[in-house]
Amino acid sequence: MNLIQLAKELNLSISTVSKALRDSHEISITTKNKVLAKAKELKYEANPFASSLRKQKSKTIALVIPEIANNFFGLAISGIESIAQEKGYHVLIYLTHEEVEKEIAIINLLKNGRVDGVMISISSQTTDNSHLQELKEKDIPLVFFDRVAENIDAPKITTDNYYSGIKATEHLIEKGCKRIAFISNSATLSIAKNRMNGYLDALKKNGIPRDESLIIYCSNDEKANNLLIRDLLKRKDRPDAIFSSVEKQAITCYEICEDLRINIPVDVKIISFSNLKTASLLNPSMTTITQPAYEIGREATSILFKIIEKKPLNLILDKTIFQAALSERNSTKGKEDAEFKNLSKAYHWFDSRNKKILL
Amino acid sequence: MNLIQLAKELNLSISTVSKALRDSHEISITTKNKVLAKAKELKYEANPFASSLRKQKSKTIALVIPEIANNFFGLAISGIESIAQEKGYHVLIYLTHEEVEKEIAIINLLKNGRVDGVMISISSQTTDNSHLQELKEKDIPLVFFDRVAENIDAPKITTDNYYSGIKATEHLIEKGCKRIAFISNSATLSIAKNRMNGYLDALKKNGIPRDESLIIYCSNDEKANNLLIRDLLKRKDRPDAIFSSVEKQAITCYEICEDLRINIPVDVKIISFSNLKTASLLNPSMTTITQPAYEIGREATSILFKIIEKKPLNLILDKTIFQAALSERNSTKGKEDAEFKNLSKAYHWFDSRNKKILL
Repeated sequence: MNLIQLAKELNLSISTVSKALRDSHEISITTKNKVLAKAKELKYEANPFASSLRKQKSKTIALVIPEIANNFFGLAISGIESIAQEKGYHVLIYLTHEEVEKEIAIINLLKNGRVDGVMISISSQTTDNSHLQELKEKDIPLVFFDRVAENIDAPKITTDNYYSGIKATEHLIEKGCKRIAFISNSATLSIAKNRMNGYLDALKKNGIPRDESLIIYCSNDEKANNLLIRDLLKRKDRPDAIFSSVEKQAITCYEICEDLRINIPVDVKIISFSNLKTASLLNPSMTTITQPAYEIGREATSILFKIIEKKPLNLILDKTIFQAALSERNSTKGKEDAEFKNLSKAYHWFDSRNKKILL
Repeated sequence: MNLIQLAKELNLSISTVSKALRDSHEISITTKNKVLAKAKELKYEANPFASSLRKQKSKTIALVIPEIANNFFGLAISGIESIAQEKGYHVLIYLTHEEVEKEIAIINLLKNGRVDGVMISISSQTTDNSHLQELKEKDIPLVFFDRVAENIDAPKITTDNYYSGIKATEHLIEKGCKRIAFISNSATLSIAKNRMNGYLDALKKNGIPRDESLIIYCSNDEKANNLLIRDLLKRKDRPDAIFSSVEKQAITCYEICEDLRINIPVDVKIISFSNLKTASLLNPSMTTITQPAYEIGREATSILFKIIEKKPLNLILDKTIFQAALSERNSTKGKEDAEFKNLSKAYHWFDSRNKKILL
């Protein structure tokens, strides 16, 4: 049943029926009721594409992210979807798998106006932002969250990455660490640079010299990442702490420590940016810097809808910055902490029996 | 720049320009080249909705799932997206948050032909399937995965839930357990019923009587779930093992055990269906039944595209059943296992010092 058939059944013009269905003031109430009754009787439903074409609205927003099996993005999507559902909008999800070629292909698809707005967290490979600039030039509403392109004039929802980098590093210094390694996932992403600058400035402030050999850049190749971290932990002058700016690599550190029988926190302390729900249940429980992922998703979406609906934004320099929280747990306990003795004793107790550490 | 303006610039009819852009045989090569050159010069891009309307194809599939911050669905989506990207399709994601009302509202949106096909994992509340039947009646390609509606004639991609239920329960019985609790998330979902039937049949086969007080049904209310599990673990006649058919509730069990200072596996053993990446790093490492989530996502999508492309399916009874794998870890170690002594000794060593168990 399409509009033409419906008009025929009613013995009215297509234009009249269409206007009646859209509740136009040009049509009398009697006619409207007649049309609606017949539409219901014949189970007529508007074709969503025809309707989108007429209104020039797709009622759809696109979300472009590096990966989905990731706790930060999982929570952010829940936040995004909660706002979209309130607004009666559909959400298209695209994954770049951290590849800039895929990101460009996706943005090219979106340039034609398939969606009313785009939310993006850029890939770790993205350095040239011209594909994103083109989206901007097409006047398609655009909002960045978490991994933002600094030089593009669009709202950016982030965490206080620089300050979090300082906080995490100073936490390790307070626990007595002097050789602190840093794991990054990009030399170019502003989020990664901000975290690393926080790390470097905290070292400087505390009179600890910068050591390039303690800075590790991970890539998309998990095997290579594993080797890099394994080499770091096998060195004679092993670091006494690792600050991972990527949750995934903190997990890799745990796995390698278990394998090499390196005790966390006695031999090496670990802190990581993470939204892992099980951080407190790990062996040992992991100290984390946690971003408010759900809230970041909601805020980015609210701002996108303000742009779509042409409402005022009131953003200072286009930025909204959320605070991350440091949760201290056993993976960074130091000699001064009461729990450290137990953690250390248990370690030696097991070790003296020359058994694999199982607990 | 739209089609009308482009035609005007070329001094040709809209119909001719449209046909030229679609490479119609009715138009000469000279005209086609002229139109394409002008379209490129003026940066004309086809409106995707007009194009979808013409082709009656949206190049979009919908994915309807209960939640996204869940390791099984995160991995399944990666699999789904990998096939959709190969096919040049867009993926719309809808979350039901385990609420049947939301599921019905989403399916009603999708009934109008916005997408070329639908993949769904139904909510734990869904008992009446008439909304899904309506989708079927509209001839919209439909595939179920993981949580399927048994009585609807559509392909279903699942795991061997009944056999996995037997396997998990027999594993606990082998480890000496006699009072095994079972945690379910639905009394009606076939996936939950199959897992529970496996549990019940394994008990029966091993001469262990069914105890209704050891079967717990969780809901959407996490506070209530926490209380139910806490009450179970506080009972004098506490179970000696918990088989959780839901990953989320296994995590809750771990949290409550830590809080109540109940030792896993000495006091209670735990096994769970889970795709948790950190299962092996938990304290203690968790024995899991793991579904091949990524492969399930890929297979469901491949079958959906076969239906969309009207290719033969060759499915027996509409079903594809994947095997789940049991990974034994420390949370189910028994007296016979070498590691159990260590786990138990460490426990008493800590306990004798009357300290909170920290490791």
